[in-house]
Amino acid sequence: MNATKPLTIVIVGGVAGGASAATRARRMNENAEIILLEKDPDVSFANCGLPYHIGEEIPNRDSLLVATPEFLRRRFRLDVRTRHEALSIDRQNKRVEVRRGETSEIIWIDYDKLILAPGASPIRPNLDGADAENVLSLRNLNDTDRIKAIVDDKQTKNAVVVGAGYIGLEMVEQLVQRGLNTTLVELQPQVLPLLDPEMARPIADEIEAKEVSLLLGRSVSGLVTNGNNQVTEVALSDGSTIATDLVVMGIGVQPNIKLAVDAGLEIGVTGGIATNDFMQTSDPDIYAVGDAAEYRFGPTGKRMRVSLAGPANRAGRLAGQHAATGQSDPMPTVQGTSVVRVFGVSAAMTGLSCATAKRMGVDAASVTIVAKNHAGYYPGAQVMTLKLVYQAETGKILGAQAVGGAGVDKRIDVIATAMQFEGSVRQLGGVDLSYAPPFGSAKDPVHMAAFAACNQIDGIETFCDSDADLAGKQVVDVRTAAEIERTPLSGSPLAGTSEKGIIAIPVDELRDRISELDPSLPTVVSCAVGIRGHIAARILKQHGFKVVNLSGGATVRNRVNFASSNEHP
Amino acid sequence: MNATKPLTIVIVGGVAGGASAATRARRMNENAEIILLEKDPDVSFANCGLPYHIGEEIPNRDSLLVATPEFLRRRFRLDVRTRHEALSIDRQNKRVEVRRGETSEIIWIDYDKLILAPGASPIRPNLDGADAENVLSLRNLNDTDRIKAIVDDKQTKNAVVVGAGYIGLEMVEQLVQRGLNTTLVELQPQVLPLLDPEMARPIADEIEAKEVSLLLGRSVSGLVTNGNNQVTEVALSDGSTIATDLVVMGIGVQPNIKLAVDAGLEIGVTGGIATNDFMQTSDPDIYAVGDAAEYRFGPTGKRMRVSLAGPANRAGRLAGQHAATGQSDPMPTVQGTSVVRVFGVSAAMTGLSCATAKRMGVDAASVTIVAKNHAGYYPGAQVMTLKLVYQAETGKILGAQAVGGAGVDKRIDVIATAMQFEGSVRQLGGVDLSYAPPFGSAKDPVHMAAFAACNQIDGIETFCDSDADLAGKQVVDVRTAAEIERTPLSGSPLAGTSEKGIIAIPVDELRDRISELDPSLPTVVSCAVGIRGHIAARILKQHGFKVVNLSGGATVRNRVNFASSNEHP
Repeated sequence: MNATKPLTIVIVGGVAGGASAATRARRMNENAEIILLEKDPDVSFANCGLPYHIGEEIPNRDSLLVATPEFLRRRFRLDVRTRHEALSIDRQNKRVEVRRGETSEIIWIDYDKLILAPGASPIRPNLDGADAENVLSLRNLNDTDRIKAIVDDKQTKNAVVVGAGYIGLEMVEQLVQRGLNTTLVELQPQVLPLLDPEMARPIADEIEAKEVSLLLGRSVSGLVTNGNNQVTEVALSDGSTIATDLVVMGIGVQPNIKLAVDAGLEIGVTGGIATNDFMQTSDPDIYAVGDAAEYRFGPTGKRMRVSLAGPANRAGRLAGQHAATGQSDPMPTVQGTSVVRVFGVSAAMTGLSCATAKRMGVDAASVTIVAKNHAGYYPGAQVMTLKLVYQAETGKILGAQAVGGAGVDKRIDVIATAMQFEGSVRQLGGVDLSYAPPFGSAKDPVHMAAFAACNQIDGIETFCDSDADLAGKQVVDVRTAAEIERTPLSGSPLAGTSEKGIIAIPVDELRDRISELDPSLPTVVSCAVGIRGHIAARILKQHGFKVVNLSGGATVRNRVNFASSNEHP
Repeated sequence: MNATKPLTIVIVGGVAGGASAATRARRMNENAEIILLEKDPDVSFANCGLPYHIGEEIPNRDSLLVATPEFLRRRFRLDVRTRHEALSIDRQNKRVEVRRGETSEIIWIDYDKLILAPGASPIRPNLDGADAENVLSLRNLNDTDRIKAIVDDKQTKNAVVVGAGYIGLEMVEQLVQRGLNTTLVELQPQVLPLLDPEMARPIADEIEAKEVSLLLGRSVSGLVTNGNNQVTEVALSDGSTIATDLVVMGIGVQPNIKLAVDAGLEIGVTGGIATNDFMQTSDPDIYAVGDAAEYRFGPTGKRMRVSLAGPANRAGRLAGQHAATGQSDPMPTVQGTSVVRVFGVSAAMTGLSCATAKRMGVDAASVTIVAKNHAGYYPGAQVMTLKLVYQAETGKILGAQAVGGAGVDKRIDVIATAMQFEGSVRQLGGVDLSYAPPFGSAKDPVHMAAFAACNQIDGIETFCDSDADLAGKQVVDVRTAAEIERTPLSGSPLAGTSEKGIIAIPVDELRDRISELDPSLPTVVSCAVGIRGHIAARILKQHGFKVVNLSGGATVRNRVNFASSNEHP
């Protein structure tokens, strides 16, 4: 770098990662020339807030503008250029080809350091009608304005949301709050496919309780348009059709990597721009952050894409510093921690689900508990289900999921923090969390889950999955008769009666009635949530039974879809 | 142990630690004889819930009985003996001398393993009148019933609470909710003496806003009684008196160690029963848990008493397992994590405060940030102040305090979890927390605090404490003129005007007006909360200034008590 010429940092993309990079670069280097290129008209807007403006929870559109170009110029002396689209990178000469939106003029901008934060684009279905005026994805303020205009239109009565991921669910919530008849279509047999099925179920129940038509295991096969380039009907893979005034597509995103690919930068195995620990690409003068980049994923140690705002912001800040000064801390691993609120139920997760871990060939085990967010004797306690996934042998935490009322975010954040330290379930059982009756319990749900996992590792107790095949097992339901009658255990063999069917013995009677059970049979105990099952399992194990406790008890098992609940699955 | 004689585990104390020990021991060992001795009539009651029953937030007294003796007998086959007071331990013959409350009969109970969970007793002031009928501490259900009866009496108008620790504050909240004129007296010049003064201040402000008379820096010097053994007036060290119908003493607890001392068990330096990693005392057949025991404290690695329910429950569980089976995991370190809600403000803390760390000679540094609990653009965001204390050189986290609205518990739990792993502020800056607008921010308050600490360690930015003496400093207030007029910076030299007084330059004008400042003077920048101060400090530092940023800005500084706010302190 010439001493008389300031360091020039060019940043492609001005939202989460790009804006963080630019402002940190400025704070680290007053003299650098920092050019922020953004193809859209807005920078640094609150992309996670967009659904809530459509739903009018955030009434003022301006509050979505976290930082305007003018603000960034004034406070950070950034050279913010909106409607400037980067077209190509000339790595040889260290310059970027840019199209200026107003004039379509092509210019070249030199860089010393280049930070790519181009984000991702919504996947559009390859169907006629996908370009209709009322078929929209939600990615930026322009999308927001267009969707909101349709929702605001008093003629609009019906909406179809395609895809039950985070954005799809948030849009369903907001559209219902705006009074639309809403249908949610999802290809997978569950909402939130990143979660294990039984953990996603309470979200599905909640949206059905809000009279959303939930159509799982179906895809959109056609979009019927009228003469005005409006879709009026959505056709599904099962042959059914839904009349609609609005289609919101939330079927995922694809990283914007064309610029990187064309420039010959290395692309990782998950299709994002490959990065090192300082978010440098295969060209050390070029960084990549945000949805288009790959991160090191904590549970596996492997690099992968993580389309979340938190890592984007932190990686942008880090890349901005490194670009401006040549040094920074290494980028920490990312756990993929996320949360979504859907009406009165929230779901949070971090790391790997059990299903994903098993798909990847990881030797994963799990425990599931049902507990309250604070002391049960203090009014207003809300129930959550917490599932902890860990390496079966070592106990290293691989992930967790929580679904329920208040406090799911806190528990997942605590577990994600333990994962940042590559912690084990044993260490998690020792975390010292704040407790007062309005906030938690002396034994927090996090502790209860960790204790259960440690019991399993130590051979003190073995759990079976909530969807286990109970055929041929001696199933002992240790709840009271009244509870069993109210909520029978689903998916059971010969439920309720008969030999080798369910045997009902309340836990408090188990020691006296143990002779009613056959110690030679593989035995499953179940209760409402697993606590009494734990006690029963310990009693039976010490009497020589080969016994497992049904994880999460009837509460979680009854969320599993069995072909027929009272027959062999 | 004779094969025909079962293992006998005797537990002294049947509340948090003792009850956890007993039930875990049973789950681990069906054959053991487990005797739970409790001198009071109740076991396993919700001691943290007692204030809320007095305040009628928990209307049903029975809901405080987490587990009755009958329940523990039925479900866990525990030999629960209430009103049984352990008087002495005969270690030679492994037996405990016990007085049966109903008959005062003395019996001896043999043990193979003994678990001491005797708790702590409220400290009573050494004053005439301290035994009056309306001078009460809150430790058990009997205390609760007596206090509640007085509060329920329509004649009761005035209450004095002595001690502004957790119980004192919770009682103030509940008494106010019951309509009493309440006075809070505290010896220290602040509420919550475990917190740094400026962090405790919002709690003081909140209780004063609820029209509680808050008398700091004063002690009770006398209790004036009437002929009915009722205190009618409380005399204070400043010579003033307060008429009252009820006095609640919350001036701390002393561990119940007489049994252990008399038995010759080792007592630790903090006055609790010394324990090893398995909660064994100096006699390996005797364990100690709960408020009477010592734990290994994470921030210092030293053993100390920690009078909190969470560690008591976890240590009890661990000791119960170890006593029943001869093995368990080691007891993890304890961070002293706690939380209290006082009307609309909550305070949570973990580890060491800055003041405590410095008193202990630890080379502690700190940063303080002011941030919202979730995205500011999403409605209902609440402000919190978060202070992070760490080892100045290594960055190892020593503690944290958070005060404000919703979400302080979550941030402290995340930091406490990082502390469990002996984490540094650098690692804390990398935790991957869940984010959606209703739950958090892409850069969480935890990140912001950790980033600030890392900046300080890396020499990127230096903070000065909110109570720093600004005399002789070039103080630059980078807020707007309107903000400064609304909320002047307190405790400033020659505030507002004059040479070497405060110089007002809005951050956005700083680059252009930098010639107005003298780079040879030690310089302090301040804004509202520290963010603009950070930007300003970076600008000035890169221009050769020796500059520090006022931690937490005017918001936190204006909570500090200065002798006179506009003169040299």
